[in-house]
Amino acid sequence: MWSKNVETFLECDKNPHYATTLLFGAPFDSTTSYRPGTRFGPAAIRRESYGLESYSPYLNEDLEDGSVLDLGDLELCLGDTRKALEQIEDRTREILQAAKRPFLLGGEHLVTLGAFRAVAERYPNVHIIHFDAHADLREEYLGAELSHACVLRRCWELVGDGRIYQFGIRSGTREEFTWGASHVETRLFDFDGLEETLDRLKGKPVYFTVDLDVMDPSVFPGTGTPEPGGVTFDALRQAVTMVCSRARVVGCDVNELSPPYDQSGASTMAACKIVREMLLALQSMRPHGKGDDDNTGGM
Amino acid sequence: MWSKNVETFLECDKNPHYATTLLFGAPFDSTTSYRPGTRFGPAAIRRESYGLESYSPYLNEDLEDGSVLDLGDLELCLGDTRKALEQIEDRTREILQAAKRPFLLGGEHLVTLGAFRAVAERYPNVHIIHFDAHADLREEYLGAELSHACVLRRCWELVGDGRIYQFGIRSGTREEFTWGASHVETRLFDFDGLEETLDRLKGKPVYFTVDLDVMDPSVFPGTGTPEPGGVTFDALRQAVTMVCSRARVVGCDVNELSPPYDQSGASTMAACKIVREMLLALQSMRPHGKGDDDNTGGM
Amino acid sequence: MWSKNVETFLECDKNPHYATTLLFGAPFDSTTSYRPGTRFGPAAIRRESYGLESYSPYLNEDLEDGSVLDLGDLELCLGDTRKALEQIEDRTREILQAAKRPFLLGGEHLVTLGAFRAVAERYPNVHIIHFDAHADLREEYLGAELSHACVLRRCWELVGDGRIYQFGIRSGTREEFTWGASHVETRLFDFDGLEETLDRLKGKPVYFTVDLDVMDPSVFPGTGTPEPGGVTFDALRQAVTMVCSRARVVGCDVNELSPPYDQSGASTMAACKIVREMLLALQSMRPHGKGDDDNTGGM
Amino acid sequence: MWSKNVETFLECDKNPHYATTLLFGAPFDSTTSYRPGTRFGPAAIRRESYGLESYSPYLNEDLEDGSVLDLGDLELCLGDTRKALEQIEDRTREILQAAKRPFLLGGEHLVTLGAFRAVAERYPNVHIIHFDAHADLREEYLGAELSHACVLRRCWELVGDGRIYQFGIRSGTREEFTWGASHVETRLFDFDGLEETLDRLKGKPVYFTVDLDVMDPSVFPGTGTPEPGGVTFDALRQAVTMVCSRARVVGCDVNELSPPYDQSGASTMAACKIVREMLLALQSMRPHGKGDDDNTGGM
Amino acid sequence: MWSKNVETFLECDKNPHYATTLLFGAPFDSTTSYRPGTRFGPAAIRRESYGLESYSPYLNEDLEDGSVLDLGDLELCLGDTRKALEQIEDRTREILQAAKRPFLLGGEHLVTLGAFRAVAERYPNVHIIHFDAHADLREEYLGAELSHACVLRRCWELVGDGRIYQFGIRSGTREEFTWGASHVETRLFDFDGLEETLDRLKGKPVYFTVDLDVMDPSVFPGTGTPEPGGVTFDALRQAVTMVCSRARVVGCDVNELSPPYDQSGASTMAACKIVREMLLALQSMRPHGKGDDDNTGGM
Amino acid sequence: MWSKNVETFLECDKNPHYATTLLFGAPFDSTTSYRPGTRFGPAAIRRESYGLESYSPYLNEDLEDGSVLDLGDLELCLGDTRKALEQIEDRTREILQAAKRPFLLGGEHLVTLGAFRAVAERYPNVHIIHFDAHADLREEYLGAELSHACVLRRCWELVGDGRIYQFGIRSGTREEFTWGASHVETRLFDFDGLEETLDRLKGKPVYFTVDLDVMDPSVFPGTGTPEPGGVTFDALRQAVTMVCSRARVVGCDVNELSPPYDQSGASTMAACKIVREMLLALQSMRPHGKGDDDNTGGM
Repeated sequence: MWSKNVETFLECDKNPHYATTLLFGAPFDSTTSYRPGTRFGPAAIRRESYGLESYSPYLNEDLEDGSVLDLGDLELCLGDTRKALEQIEDRTREILQAAKRPFLLGGEHLVTLGAFRAVAERYPNVHIIHFDAHADLREEYLGAELSHACVLRRCWELVGDGRIYQFGIRSGTREEFTWGASHVETRLFDFDGLEETLDRLKGKPVYFTVDLDVMDPSVFPGTGTPEPGGVTFDALRQAVTMVCSRARVVGCDVNELSPPYDQSGASTMAACKIVREMLLALQSMRPHGKGDDDNTGGM
Repeated sequence: MWSKNVETFLECDKNPHYATTLLFGAPFDSTTSYRPGTRFGPAAIRRESYGLESYSPYLNEDLEDGSVLDLGDLELCLGDTRKALEQIEDRTREILQAAKRPFLLGGEHLVTLGAFRAVAERYPNVHIIHFDAHADLREEYLGAELSHACVLRRCWELVGDGRIYQFGIRSGTREEFTWGASHVETRLFDFDGLEETLDRLKGKPVYFTVDLDVMDPSVFPGTGTPEPGGVTFDALRQAVTMVCSRARVVGCDVNELSPPYDQSGASTMAACKIVREMLLALQSMRPHGKGDDDNTGGM
Repeated sequence: MWSKNVETFLECDKNPHYATTLLFGAPFDSTTSYRPGTRFGPAAIRRESYGLESYSPYLNEDLEDGSVLDLGDLELCLGDTRKALEQIEDRTREILQAAKRPFLLGGEHLVTLGAFRAVAERYPNVHIIHFDAHADLREEYLGAELSHACVLRRCWELVGDGRIYQFGIRSGTREEFTWGASHVETRLFDFDGLEETLDRLKGKPVYFTVDLDVMDPSVFPGTGTPEPGGVTFDALRQAVTMVCSRARVVGCDVNELSPPYDQSGASTMAACKIVREMLLALQSMRPHGKGDDDNTGGM
Repeated sequence: MWSKNVETFLECDKNPHYATTLLFGAPFDSTTSYRPGTRFGPAAIRRESYGLESYSPYLNEDLEDGSVLDLGDLELCLGDTRKALEQIEDRTREILQAAKRPFLLGGEHLVTLGAFRAVAERYPNVHIIHFDAHADLREEYLGAELSHACVLRRCWELVGDGRIYQFGIRSGTREEFTWGASHVETRLFDFDGLEETLDRLKGKPVYFTVDLDVMDPSVFPGTGTPEPGGVTFDALRQAVTMVCSRARVVGCDVNELSPPYDQSGASTMAACKIVREMLLALQSMRPHGKGDDDNTGGM
Repeated sequence: MWSKNVETFLECDKNPHYATTLLFGAPFDSTTSYRPGTRFGPAAIRRESYGLESYSPYLNEDLEDGSVLDLGDLELCLGDTRKALEQIEDRTREILQAAKRPFLLGGEHLVTLGAFRAVAERYPNVHIIHFDAHADLREEYLGAELSHACVLRRCWELVGDGRIYQFGIRSGTREEFTWGASHVETRLFDFDGLEETLDRLKGKPVYFTVDLDVMDPSVFPGTGTPEPGGVTFDALRQAVTMVCSRARVVGCDVNELSPPYDQSGASTMAACKIVREMLLALQSMRPHGKGDDDNTGGM
Repeated sequence: MWSKNVETFLECDKNPHYATTLLFGAPFDSTTSYRPGTRFGPAAIRRESYGLESYSPYLNEDLEDGSVLDLGDLELCLGDTRKALEQIEDRTREILQAAKRPFLLGGEHLVTLGAFRAVAERYPNVHIIHFDAHADLREEYLGAELSHACVLRRCWELVGDGRIYQFGIRSGTREEFTWGASHVETRLFDFDGLEETLDRLKGKPVYFTVDLDVMDPSVFPGTGTPEPGGVTFDALRQAVTMVCSRARVVGCDVNELSPPYDQSGASTMAACKIVREMLLALQSMRPHGKGDDDNTGGM
């Protein structure tokens, strides 16, 4: 009769046996360079999702019909970046071993590295689609190599050239752009070229990482490093839908919501709705298929 | 020499005798499902209107030349929804009997039902133009039939099929959309089709209800249920101007501003400016005319 | 291996079988007269409790050793006060029937009425100890009898004269104080007389209701109706400890936290710590005992 | 039937003929040295007073039985300090000529100078009781003589030595304290000595100026220059009551509430309650009496 | 070894000898009519600039390679408008005499008058390019001629007809627009016509004044008088870049950021990025050239 | 003529040669367990100090007469705790080697460890006086030994039993209190016993660490882990004055101000004033004296 209080993202309380996507939070922000607070992101997304409907008129789909389970947040070792990343990597590996799709909610963008290590281990030929305002390609930041400003550079070290596709980038050092030009594919400012990229990656395993600050601060002020001049909510919604419904997404994350910096809650709702649309679009996709070309790197 | 302090919306202090539009507030939010606070909406709109000019460069009109009187807020029975709606209905009926146009400031969207009851009684053939992010067509919400999530459904019960035109809708349950398809006309996401609708409703009495959350939360975060992906301020401004200057608006309302959720005040200013533009556009329209076809329902 | 996300108040995740106190939230604020938002109170208390330790140096007790289960929040019918109160009453009755102690987290103060109906039914001779800034003894408020401004008056109707002991009261109409003088015992401004009251109520069943706004707004600004001139946190802490460790508390509630009005979170922490100290003090008390004089009213 | 919206401080809507105290606001903050925003003070006090009761259990008095009229705010010339002060002086003079008591709501503390000029003209032997955190005795501030940091120095120029009694002072330059020692009477930190002062001023006309920042920032963070270490709300409440019920207050002001700096609204409520208690205590006092020794300076 | 703490805008710490642009702040907001707070603008822009990169991917330029020195804020006489303007004028004159370009950070828009006086003295044939939501062409405002609502009118008095080009204007009184029609060139709502204007002003000295409220409040809520319906960040960015890289800008200012009204900090970042882009675009321009036609007024 | 913008704490811009105390900030909060933001503490203290006077009426001293230099903030490696602590240690060592007193502004409390390492190296017989709400004596926290919850435990490892005196503690795990009982001296809740402690430590070198959350959250809500039930501002002010004027303070720190959590700024002002009073009280003390017993451990 009496049971403990359960809280999950909108309708993401499905039977673990049949769930195909497992949602989990990594409330970590220790390397954030400007304004911390993203540690509160995953809990806020879970909690405030009840301000949305589970049905999407864009997709004519409902999360009630989905197969997602929200596992809650990891309890991470704040202040010890190495350990925290290992915890995220371990959880991701477990999910992959259970033949399910990991969906990580950050936290700062560095959390991607934890998840991606497990994904790249399982899918050596994985590619990354990366939406962000910032290139995140620094070699190091203030002496730290494990910094959210370096996360894609660290990911690159795992897979090498030609595997990372960036969109929406509008900030970085001159060095990042120079280095990036010969190692990753960077599209500035918007999502131009996304369709072609998806065509090229057809059938290949894709890790999809969304730094929500790709949106303009008018839409999404609640983030650590607001960078004016970003995309609209609808532009991001359409782009994530396109990726999730056309690419073979074997893992993904949504990060950099910092709720304390948006007292109106609008940023949190934008994050919730992006997560909902991604989950709905992924609903019809199966991440692990027989015959997929998963084990060879390169294109 | 000494007189009590008077506060009205910008220049809306005209002689009650000659006033053609009567503005009044309904500070009610008891059925709000997500975040309350719209009770503070009408007072904030009145107060902050002084941050605007009374002159509109869009319309080349000035509220100084208008004929609007702001009656202030009703003192509503919070917690007893039925009584509160009756109070709104009574005030609206009095205004209509005085052959003036009621302009209601909410409060949550349910206040529309109070005003619309009086309007539908006086104009049995009235139609509704409804701008909103949410369909508001539920049969009931958490057991309540008098909820802001059901308000258009309750209005529909008064006038029947084919009388309600919704624009900008981007949220609802699957059931609401299914039911709506055969009872009301719903345009998703924007104001496409508004001109055709206005052509069809030419000469017919129209009740115009504006849920300000039809705007994107970037423009209007100060609301109970922010729903990302809405229209811009200018899109809404143009649409309300079109309705108010082309339709025969016999009553209207603007609702769902929740000032505590936008500490910057920008949401309140957006509400103020929409109200100003509506009042200016209505200025040249007369709501009650001889020969109008007011007494027969249907189209 | 995978399980849904569980969230409870600090260590209040004990086996339902052995739990002696059941915590539950009533996120209701529809009758709030001034500033709504207490609906967010119980979830905030649950969530932010992790900023505290489970151990109290005041009492040298730890919630780890306790027997409390947090059931989460009721899903209440907002806008229909009568139904919402019935839902609270039903849940309280079930808890009492299971021979456990209900501990209700509001919401606005009116939620007390729901819980108290069930308690008064089970313990006809129950007395109320009431901490509050406001007398809450109005006959009606703006036409509503079910209003948080009337809640103790409604409770009085269930048990009659001489059963209600108020402390800390510093606000009310002249009528409330006049009426109160002959029906309840009211101590103004602080907790003077609390020990004598506890002596008088020794062994009798007590319902304990704490409106947190009894604290000064400097300590507790996050509430619907801040009333300057209240008690300090330590004064309240000592007083609730005294009641919970010396009275026979058969049910209790803590209410009127409105998190949106205190962006610093300090109000929420004050609420959390009061709840922790109450739970710890109640730990050593058994609410239901053989031989207790439970079935006759009067003193 | 229809009338413009009236807004006054709690029950301060009495007939101008019979009103004995006239309340008015001076929304001015142009010389504020640290954080502006007090211009919003008087309107916030008026508006939020409805969160209080009109009855005081401290005094057993009710504003319903009072004779106060709230005239609203002056429309002041911001940016031209000299003009703004003249406007305040003119309004005060009119009130005094009508044999009523002016009660000014600031605005920054400099507004006192406007009111005090008119009062000192009418009552050459007036004394000042001054509650404040800051001495406000500078000769000039950043080149301006008309600055809120100099206001008591400017008042001193009108009446000379021995007329100003300061209480609660806890901030100033070394020069201010040195100068003050031989010209005004300054009590540091609290209200010690207030009773003796009131005894000495018995029957003499008193101008009473309350800078609300005399309260500790915990109670009253919403002010331009928060200065930790102040008095509690209750200490101030008792002190203002003592002054208003024992001194012959011929004019008074309450100032330095800056609502934007306290999003919780608790500061505004503290201001409202201080104003209420002052008005209630003044209720039984008549400011202008035959036989009073009003026309000779000195003690 | 030990040195005082230095704080400048991003990389604007160049040797005073070689610096070509001198940045300085005027923290003044005494005439602000609606909501003060712009005095905190320049310090916030300086401080928060570290959330940006010094490199711009739009321009492929880096402030590291620039020649800008940030002198910090003037210590202005608040409350004495005349003096404050003189202080700004003096500083600007010194900068011009050193053959450097003054770049002023407001503060309210009135600060422009101080800088422009010095500029118009040095360049009698200077023209103004003015981006703003408000026309700022009033003859006086509430009795003050030195008000931010009159600043362009005051500038016009210095240079006469045909010298002022306004863009983005969407608010003003009817009188302002009427007067403006025969004295200045006003483009409503956006930057249409900017290219033609720049063509016409080719080679002529231009003072460029940017009121940031030309942006929509969704992008830039942190301002004194938010006016819905403005331009996007990208539209403003492109327009300022065009002016700074094509006109001969002999002085400029950016004003009306009021950080307290945007707790998210997004408005400050928008201001920072506009300043960065302007500085970068100015980098390749020399303001003072031999053979320029600087000494004759008219077009 | 032109110079870079300098910003220091109030009057702390003295010649490095003659300065006896060197102030520096450590903007670090990577191990904060609950709410980050203390990285913004030192800059806020520096900046907002201008809301205070440099003169103290409590001490009749002025910082103008002092000999303090503010060096600004270290640029720390966020996310790499070990490196950040080394940077703090290095800076402290340099200051000590220059025979000056280090005064560190945090940041989270872990920064103390960096400074204390250098101090304990230089003064092996140093003792710690520790003001805090939290015991900070954990062996590890969520797997991290370098956490702000463990900082005093780490300091104890450097100096051993009987060297640490804690005051004001009101939160900890049962284990911390048990362990502490035999290793450090802990006074709960307030400053009782401080005078005796100072008597015992007479002449011995003392490191003084102030976690500002020892104050009640009503006074100081802007902190990472608000813990209700703390001391008043005046209690802390008197206690720090007593320590700084009677102990031989060879190094000290003030930490845990998190400005984003107190939008009113009152917390920052409390921090500023505590720092000012400490600096003034230290002014008459010389930290390094001939004949002091500095080189032998033990008591």
